[in-house]
Amino acid sequence: MTTMATFPLAVVGTVALDDVATPAGEARAVLGGSATYFSVAASLFTRVGLVGVVGEDFPVKFRELLAGRDIDLSGLETAKGRTFHWAGRYDGAMNAATTLQTDLNVLETFTPRLSEAHRRAPVVFLANIAPSIQHSVLDQLLPPASGARLVVADTMNLWIDVQREPLLAVLRRVDGLLVNDQEARSLSGEKNLIAAGRRLLGAGPRFVIVKKGEHGAFLFAKDRAFALPSYPLEDVRDPTGAGDSFAGGLLGALAAGRHATTADLIDAMIYGTVTASFAVSTFSLDGLARVSPADVQQRAAELRRFVDPRPG
Amino acid sequence: MTTMATFPLAVVGTVALDDVATPAGEARAVLGGSATYFSVAASLFTRVGLVGVVGEDFPVKFRELLAGRDIDLSGLETAKGRTFHWAGRYDGAMNAATTLQTDLNVLETFTPRLSEAHRRAPVVFLANIAPSIQHSVLDQLLPPASGARLVVADTMNLWIDVQREPLLAVLRRVDGLLVNDQEARSLSGEKNLIAAGRRLLGAGPRFVIVKKGEHGAFLFAKDRAFALPSYPLEDVRDPTGAGDSFAGGLLGALAAGRHATTADLIDAMIYGTVTASFAVSTFSLDGLARVSPADVQQRAAELRRFVDPRPG
Repeated sequence: MTTMATFPLAVVGTVALDDVATPAGEARAVLGGSATYFSVAASLFTRVGLVGVVGEDFPVKFRELLAGRDIDLSGLETAKGRTFHWAGRYDGAMNAATTLQTDLNVLETFTPRLSEAHRRAPVVFLANIAPSIQHSVLDQLLPPASGARLVVADTMNLWIDVQREPLLAVLRRVDGLLVNDQEARSLSGEKNLIAAGRRLLGAGPRFVIVKKGEHGAFLFAKDRAFALPSYPLEDVRDPTGAGDSFAGGLLGALAAGRHATTADLIDAMIYGTVTASFAVSTFSLDGLARVSPADVQQRAAELRRFVDPRPG
Repeated sequence: MTTMATFPLAVVGTVALDDVATPAGEARAVLGGSATYFSVAASLFTRVGLVGVVGEDFPVKFRELLAGRDIDLSGLETAKGRTFHWAGRYDGAMNAATTLQTDLNVLETFTPRLSEAHRRAPVVFLANIAPSIQHSVLDQLLPPASGARLVVADTMNLWIDVQREPLLAVLRRVDGLLVNDQEARSLSGEKNLIAAGRRLLGAGPRFVIVKKGEHGAFLFAKDRAFALPSYPLEDVRDPTGAGDSFAGGLLGALAAGRHATTADLIDAMIYGTVTASFAVSTFSLDGLARVSPADVQQRAAELRRFVDPRPG
């Protein structure tokens, strides 16, 4: 008899080896990927089950970094071939990445097979991955042991361009959508970001969060809208993974608390924002992996103060 | 014996005839200019003395529009020649204007001569105009009849490029600096906006406000930093004058209240933000000129709610 692993939060996404160049420096063959950043971020708050695939070249030290945290790796498959590889560059104010190379490698044939524990996770994040794979994950989900299910999806411009209809169908099957400003504009067809957010809210999910990088994030929910500036950072070294770290902090905080009212979402956005602020302060996951829960709480208090218009 | 006009707020800047094209439409030979937008915005809160120059072609209807508000026009000179003319275009998300034509006309030889009332105005705004002219205004100022003097300056990239040293000297003579994000980066030499704001705060003024258009504004003061998102607008028709309307609402609210603590500045930023939101909803000053103080208060309450992370 074996005890089934359980965790309140599961993520399906990419695990990558990244080459990144920014005005602050360069890093080669470092740990990256949407599920990776998400999991390390979320593990600051709760136990998270990572579903993804790596190749035979995936370094042991990176597996150990993940295993050393509150991350369940039973869903991390090792396939024949090389790990997904992304190379990108950030210039100037580092608002957008220029992709230099993408080698799908083992991702090309990846079909996530979820265990019972993943299927019943109360909170599920569909990180940026093909909408067809997001549907396959949604098809596998089973009711959680107790309480409500919360499913949130991310995406990227590639899928908006080439798998628009399957992606719109994903929106009708999830509770929340998490996109950046360009994706919100492109998916909604609205240039104005407020109009874009409201249009996406009408497309299925009960909330939409639009990430604006250094400019913060918007929440569009049925009962209210909310704007949160970013944590003020003087030194951004590598924006890679900022959005996934935001998502990890957000859903980690939500999963730890187990509700997702608008007030909970707003509170979780504060945690997503400060978690992302740690991620962008160093290359790869070096900064985020060193953060303590006390560091998170301190920046959360600083951010609340930064945005508080009340005197004192 | 004549009664001297008095007003708590004076502005020195441009009065223009604008041609503007945006994705929402076009307008030709409409009322524009930094001092114009500022005055109409500020007159929602307090009486304002406008110092500027127009040509003989300046339409009577525009003079009447200004005179019909709480704006003192004794400092609006009419010079031989044509009014300053600006033609510009906004594309896409309308984040930045492309200048198509600038005809200085009567501005070319403009030297502001301030009356006693202007010289003693407790609050003075040096709108975007040549730093040499800003110095000439500063040279003319006299102590207000009572209370402290508050002087705030704006600028533009042209002056940062061609009159950098005189502009840096202006910073050492004013209380506050109001710039947009590009100007903050270019004037400070810092690409990171938080670093840029802090650097500018070290260059002389006791506060720096960085305007980020649709992304809101930052305040950098000695005792704290503060971020305020923009009022959420679905339909932006013409961003011309947004920054000057923000300044007018900000200093109008400050002049009406007569203090400039950090708490006062934060409160005034809310009024600057909502005032700008009315300005960009229509071409030229059509929208702003129709706004009532009750409209301003309603949007201020909506904005406070929009940025409030507390539940309820």
